[in-house]
Amino acid sequence: MAYLGHNKNEIVERVSTADAAKIKGLQRVPIKRATAHEVISLSYGFFTPLTGFMHQDEVDGTLDSMQLPDGTLWSIPIVFDMSTDDIKKFDIEEGSSVVLEYLGAPMAIFEVEEIYKYDLERMAEKTYGTTNAKHPGVKRTMAYEERFIGGRVTLINEPVFNEPYKSFWRTPRQHLETLKAKNWKHVVAHQTRNVPHTGHEALMKQAWFAANEDLPTENLNTGVLVNAIIGEKRPGDYIDEAILLAQNALRTNGYFRDEVHLVSFTLWDMRYAGPREAIFHSILRANLGCTHHMFGRDHAGVGDFYHPYDAQNLLEEHRDKLSLKPVFLRENWYCPECFDVANSALCGHDSKAHSFSGSLIRSILTDEVKPTRMVMRPEVFDVVMESAAKYGHGSPFVNEDYLQHRRPVFTLPQLEAVE
Amino acid sequence: MAYLGHNKNEIVERVSTADAAKIKGLQRVPIKRATAHEVISLSYGFFTPLTGFMHQDEVDGTLDSMQLPDGTLWSIPIVFDMSTDDIKKFDIEEGSSVVLEYLGAPMAIFEVEEIYKYDLERMAEKTYGTTNAKHPGVKRTMAYEERFIGGRVTLINEPVFNEPYKSFWRTPRQHLETLKAKNWKHVVAHQTRNVPHTGHEALMKQAWFAANEDLPTENLNTGVLVNAIIGEKRPGDYIDEAILLAQNALRTNGYFRDEVHLVSFTLWDMRYAGPREAIFHSILRANLGCTHHMFGRDHAGVGDFYHPYDAQNLLEEHRDKLSLKPVFLRENWYCPECFDVANSALCGHDSKAHSFSGSLIRSILTDEVKPTRMVMRPEVFDVVMESAAKYGHGSPFVNEDYLQHRRPVFTLPQLEAVE
Repeated sequence: MAYLGHNKNEIVERVSTADAAKIKGLQRVPIKRATAHEVISLSYGFFTPLTGFMHQDEVDGTLDSMQLPDGTLWSIPIVFDMSTDDIKKFDIEEGSSVVLEYLGAPMAIFEVEEIYKYDLERMAEKTYGTTNAKHPGVKRTMAYEERFIGGRVTLINEPVFNEPYKSFWRTPRQHLETLKAKNWKHVVAHQTRNVPHTGHEALMKQAWFAANEDLPTENLNTGVLVNAIIGEKRPGDYIDEAILLAQNALRTNGYFRDEVHLVSFTLWDMRYAGPREAIFHSILRANLGCTHHMFGRDHAGVGDFYHPYDAQNLLEEHRDKLSLKPVFLRENWYCPECFDVANSALCGHDSKAHSFSGSLIRSILTDEVKPTRMVMRPEVFDVVMESAAKYGHGSPFVNEDYLQHRRPVFTLPQLEAVE
Repeated sequence: MAYLGHNKNEIVERVSTADAAKIKGLQRVPIKRATAHEVISLSYGFFTPLTGFMHQDEVDGTLDSMQLPDGTLWSIPIVFDMSTDDIKKFDIEEGSSVVLEYLGAPMAIFEVEEIYKYDLERMAEKTYGTTNAKHPGVKRTMAYEERFIGGRVTLINEPVFNEPYKSFWRTPRQHLETLKAKNWKHVVAHQTRNVPHTGHEALMKQAWFAANEDLPTENLNTGVLVNAIIGEKRPGDYIDEAILLAQNALRTNGYFRDEVHLVSFTLWDMRYAGPREAIFHSILRANLGCTHHMFGRDHAGVGDFYHPYDAQNLLEEHRDKLSLKPVFLRENWYCPECFDVANSALCGHDSKAHSFSGSLIRSILTDEVKPTRMVMRPEVFDVVMESAAKYGHGSPFVNEDYLQHRRPVFTLPQLEAVE
């Protein structure tokens, strides 16, 4: 079994600004944010080998056997939904192409190859293992319109990312180029939607030791790729800007060497699909050139919907089909006996340890009281506070103000020349 | 390449108390401590596949191409030396067998298969990369008598270990049985002649994460085997008792879970052969069932004789012949910015970090001032002090008193029945 990540020649890249001329006369269909994000991710190859939104047989394979028709591992449906009313309104027909429009600008050409109906309850049940509407993924699925459209997409208008996103944006091809330039032979992905506390930092360091396998340490040829998920936000989430800047602050302040750490992001709406989302993350990060991926306790889970090690066990079950090597970890806790952040796999002071409760960290940040450096690095705290002031209307957590008025992640040029 | 450690069926075990009856009439040859230790290690299979002291062609292969005549990787000569006077005095002849006697008791049968002469300077130069007599290994080699004897040994009188050694003694077969009972699928060896400071503890933990590869963490199936080297002591070394008891104290005081940590030892005189000793350690620990072995900076080196990463590089060069997987690490240091023990591969606070200087730790222990728990665990410190009082004539470091009066590591029954 080879864990090499993807070769850049294999990465899907469907970007053709030359096609801007071809949109003349094509029907324009406005899309919502969630769809626009997926158009971008599909076009740049984050979702390689997908070249567009799924056909019905691809959804079937994903749900029933977690594979695409050609046998490739795939775990989460990537679908384009549309109401029957809109299909009528926009004259959508199989065999035609339309222009997807976002924020008033043309964005991509969508080849309408198949229009189909799908049992949403079945889709939810297979993806999430539940049809409980309290599960945010189930809620998302059940909200899909009545029809799905399968077909290829081609980006004709590249998004221009705004700061601070711009500094962290890399397409899969650009990821591969960067990793090559850094001479990283192994790269371990860290999935995050968090501002890092010392437990996260320790997790990344632990994973580095696992990923550095087979490499002498005279030169450092292993890196941690912190790949943040930027997408749908819910009140109480960390604001996206704070996540990126705070993760980056760990390196710029020496908690990671320049040679071993990089922050980037992927446009993706968390599905909280636990085990299946873990599989998806492994595919995604292999597309970014990662050779390893850390999976801790309850990866990408929500509430009590998954057993803490379901994700690790599902990855283990499908190990032969993974394109990277999973690094399995237990959670860290703060141990006053060890006087340190300790991993619960190794530290035996169970009765004295304190877990990193999200609500503790949240209350620290809400109260704006600088925590001990053993819980959060002071420079990280400062960056979070600065981000709150600059981007979060005073709060590092998403609230209604942020949802309404946040600076856009990216903008799309108007392509006036061709309109 | 499979890293499975040795199957217990492959382990050499040449122990035959039944042979005790056969010694009647055989010439008795007293041996020195160093040789007695190697007789024990050979007989129990610590040096598998060796079945006795090396023949000339085995020494040639070891020195010239680092392999035994059958192609097996081997890096350090294991030889039995004897003066020409003693050969005459004891009537030693090729084809005969003699009884090796230690501390006045018969110990093993030695089949004298070959008597040969060897160029000591060549032996030193090839083993250590130098003939500088300041190198302790070179000194040892140059002190060999004029002749070597190659031949199989069979232990006929099993050593009875005294406390505290008894609690930590395991033959290779017993190691394999213990690891199996613990259900460890991966075992990473830690080579030590030290009382552990927090830098060592961190190293072992880092190696655990590397060795836990491919194993979900719901169950813990990876262990650290701390395998201490017990043998020739030099003034200033830690006393053997303190090494074993202090390493064990890390587990009994919760710094390692019971499920992931074990202390044992091997009778071996350090050669300080750096890269070649690292290869030897990999063979030795594979014989104990280890699947992984940590190798840090300047492994088994001395002074400035080796470049800090020579050992890692030689292991890398011979990777295909190793029976376990090397885990390469850089040294840890104490970083006041990280407020923690940090690995120099990851921590970028180079200008602020303090290395764990041996002399600092030494002065702490000599002064009997309990150090901060971030340098040495208080329970470890206490055990070291107790060991100093009980076994070290008041000092945790080897001195002349200790060398003259130390409690023996093991005793040999007198086998009166057969004498």
